[in-house]
Amino acid sequence: MLARECIVSAPGKVILHGEHAVVHGKVALAVSLNLRTYLRIQPGAAGRVSINMPNIDTFLSWDMSSLHALLPASRAGLQNAVEPDAAVVLKLREYAGLGDGLEDTRSLAVLAFLYIYLSVFAESRELPSLTMAVWSELPTGAGLGSSAAFSVCLSAALLASRGAIACSAVEAGQTARWSDEDLELINKWAFQGEKIIHGNPSGVDNAVGTWGGALRYLSGKIKPLSSTPVLRILLTNTRVPRSTKVLVAGVRDKITKFPAIMNPVLESIDPISCECERILMAMARGPEIQHYRVLEELIDINQHHLNVMGVGHPSLDRLCQVSLAHGLHSKLTGAGGGGCGITLLTPDTDSSVVERSIQELKDCGYDCWETSIGAPGVLHHSPSSLTEDVLKILNSY
Amino acid sequence: MLARECIVSAPGKVILHGEHAVVHGKVALAVSLNLRTYLRIQPGAAGRVSINMPNIDTFLSWDMSSLHALLPASRAGLQNAVEPDAAVVLKLREYAGLGDGLEDTRSLAVLAFLYIYLSVFAESRELPSLTMAVWSELPTGAGLGSSAAFSVCLSAALLASRGAIACSAVEAGQTARWSDEDLELINKWAFQGEKIIHGNPSGVDNAVGTWGGALRYLSGKIKPLSSTPVLRILLTNTRVPRSTKVLVAGVRDKITKFPAIMNPVLESIDPISCECERILMAMARGPEIQHYRVLEELIDINQHHLNVMGVGHPSLDRLCQVSLAHGLHSKLTGAGGGGCGITLLTPDTDSSVVERSIQELKDCGYDCWETSIGAPGVLHHSPSSLTEDVLKILNSY
Repeated sequence: MLARECIVSAPGKVILHGEHAVVHGKVALAVSLNLRTYLRIQPGAAGRVSINMPNIDTFLSWDMSSLHALLPASRAGLQNAVEPDAAVVLKLREYAGLGDGLEDTRSLAVLAFLYIYLSVFAESRELPSLTMAVWSELPTGAGLGSSAAFSVCLSAALLASRGAIACSAVEAGQTARWSDEDLELINKWAFQGEKIIHGNPSGVDNAVGTWGGALRYLSGKIKPLSSTPVLRILLTNTRVPRSTKVLVAGVRDKITKFPAIMNPVLESIDPISCECERILMAMARGPEIQHYRVLEELIDINQHHLNVMGVGHPSLDRLCQVSLAHGLHSKLTGAGGGGCGITLLTPDTDSSVVERSIQELKDCGYDCWETSIGAPGVLHHSPSSLTEDVLKILNSY
Repeated sequence: MLARECIVSAPGKVILHGEHAVVHGKVALAVSLNLRTYLRIQPGAAGRVSINMPNIDTFLSWDMSSLHALLPASRAGLQNAVEPDAAVVLKLREYAGLGDGLEDTRSLAVLAFLYIYLSVFAESRELPSLTMAVWSELPTGAGLGSSAAFSVCLSAALLASRGAIACSAVEAGQTARWSDEDLELINKWAFQGEKIIHGNPSGVDNAVGTWGGALRYLSGKIKPLSSTPVLRILLTNTRVPRSTKVLVAGVRDKITKFPAIMNPVLESIDPISCECERILMAMARGPEIQHYRVLEELIDINQHHLNVMGVGHPSLDRLCQVSLAHGLHSKLTGAGGGGCGITLLTPDTDSSVVERSIQELKDCGYDCWETSIGAPGVLHHSPSSLTEDVLKILNSY
C-alpha cells in the first residue's frame, strides 16, 4: 500500500505586524517561523494505523477494519478538499472515544489526522497501513501556528502517500519543495485540518506553513509576498497564558470607548505593515544594514501601538527591556497579553549578545529560541537532512 | 517710595497632553503646577536695589544713580508692555557685567529683573529703593515653567509697588487674587520677562503662571479652561538632561521619514487632549472615580504615543514602571528624553502607596514631589500664609 516512508516538515508562523488591527480591516503581515513540525509516515504493521505524537503524549493505534467503516460515502475528487461537516466529525469523535465537547490539543490533533487520512484515501477505497510519528519544535497553544504546521505536514505526507502529489526520493542530506500546483493542494487539505482544529480559521497559518516566506493578509484575502529574506530572530514565549478572545474584545471595547483616539492608531499600524513589506522585498533583492534599522523602528512603534490597544503585558515589557539592554528590538506577536514575542537579530548582532540575551530571557522564566523567519514552507526530507535529535525521536516510533 | 512689602507667588506649569504634537498644529493642555515661586519685595536701603535669589546663588546690589542712567527714553504707558529690543538688552547686559552670549539661568534672571523693574517705573521716572528675595520650589531648566513663574512674580510685585494694580493688605493667614484686568496686565509684563529669558516663548507658561488652572493651546492661541479641578500628582524629575531642540527636531525627522505612520499618531494625540479637557470640566462640576480612570487611560495612551515619537527615555520607562507597580499611571511631561514626568494620584490612592512610590522613585536617583495641578495662578500673600520654611528663607534676605 504505502510505497515508502515519507518525511515532511512545515514551519510555524508569527505575525510580524498587524495583529489585532487585522480584525478591523487593516493589513497584517504573517511570516514563517523556522521552528518546524516534522512528520514521518512509513509502511506500518499490516492492518494497523498507528500515530505517535510524543509532544502531546499521544500514542494510538487502530485496526484497519474498524477504520474502513468510517470511510465517507462521498467520493469527491481529491482536488476539492472536502469541508468537514459536523456529523462526520461527531462520528470520528465517537470512534476515537473523544467526548463531544473535548477541545484539547490531543483530541483535536487525533480528529484532524483521522479526517484527512480518511478523506484523502476515500476515493481509492483503500486505506494503507501506516505508522506516523510527529515531532514539533513549536510550543502548542502559543499562537505560533503549531496546529497549521501539523495539518500541513499531515496533508503533504498523506497526499504524497496517495500519489496525489509528487513523492520522488530526495537525495541524501537534501530537502525538496513541491510544485506550486502540489502546494495548492497541500494547502487546501491543510485548511480542512485547521477547520477541524479551529472551527473558523483565517487560512493564514496553513498558507504560511505551506508556502513559507511572508504573506499579506487583508480582509480575508491572502497574498504571498513574491520574495522574502530569511531573518534571524529570537522567539520568546513568556508562558503567560492569555485568551485571544478576551484580548480581541478588549481592543474592540477600547475603540468603541475612544474612537477618535483609537482609530488613528489602527490607521498608523496599516502603513507599518506596508512599509515592512516594502523593506522585506528590498532585502530579498539585497539586504542592507539600513533595512534592519527600519525594521527595528517599525517593531518599536508597533509594540507601543499594541500597548495603546491594551494587549501588552508586564512580561512583554520585560522582554523588550531585556533585549533592548543588548541593543535588540522586540515586539509581541499574535494576541499579546503575555504569549510570545519576537526579537530581531541583525548582521551586526554579536553571537555573545545573542547568548547573553537568551540566558537573561530564560532567567525571566521564559522559553527562548534562536531561529529565523521567512524560512521555506513545507519540505520533503531525506532522513539524513534531519538533525540527529529529530531523527532520533522520529526513529523511536 | 515703596509703601510696604509685597509677597507674591506663582505656580509652575506642566503639559498634561499634547507636548510635541502642539508643534504640529495639535491641541496641548497646560496646567498649573503647585510648586511655586515666591517673591517678596520690601523697601530697601535708601538709594539701593538688591536682589537675592538663593536658588540660583545670585545676590546683587546696585546703586540707584547708576540705574537711573538706564531708564528707557520712551515712556510708553504701562498698559502696553514694551517689547524688549536687542539694544536695550545689550545695554542691560553691559550694566550687569553679563557677556553678550551668556544664556545661563542667573544672567537671564538678572536681565529679566532689570528689564521689568526699569520698564514698569519708566513712566514715573522714579525708581524705588527695594530689596527683593526670591525662593522657588521649582527646579530650573526642567521644563516646569520656572522662568515664567519668576517673571509672573516679578511683574505682579513690581506692578503692585508701582500702584498699577491693586495692592491692598491681605488678611493674616490669607492669600488674595487679582482682578481679571490686573491679571491681564501682570501676564503682559510677565510675557516680556519670558521674552528676555527665552527669546521666542509661546506665552503658555506665563499664562498658566498668571491664571493657574488649565489652558488649551492651539496654533498660537491660548484659551484658559473656564474651570479646572485641583488634582493631586507626583512630579518626578529624572534629572536626565535633554535638549528640547534636539528632541523636537527628532520628532520632525520621524514624521518626515514615516509620514503615513506618524501623522495618525498626531491625529490620535489631539483627541486625547480634547477628551482630557472634557473630563477636567466634568470633574470641576463634580469629580467621580470614573473620571480618574479615564485620565489614567489617557495618560497611558499618550505615554506610548510619546514613545512612538522617540521622545521617551529608559528613565521615564522606569518612572512608569515603578509607579504602575503601585497602581499609579505616569507620563512624561514636556520635551521628554529624560526630564520630568507626572503621576496621577486619585482619591483611592492610599497615603502609604504615595510614600512608598516617592521613596522608590528617589531610590532611582530622581527628585520627586507630592504636589497638585490646577492650582491657582499668581497670588498675593500675607506673610503668615506662607509655610514656615518659605517665610524663613525670604526673611533671611
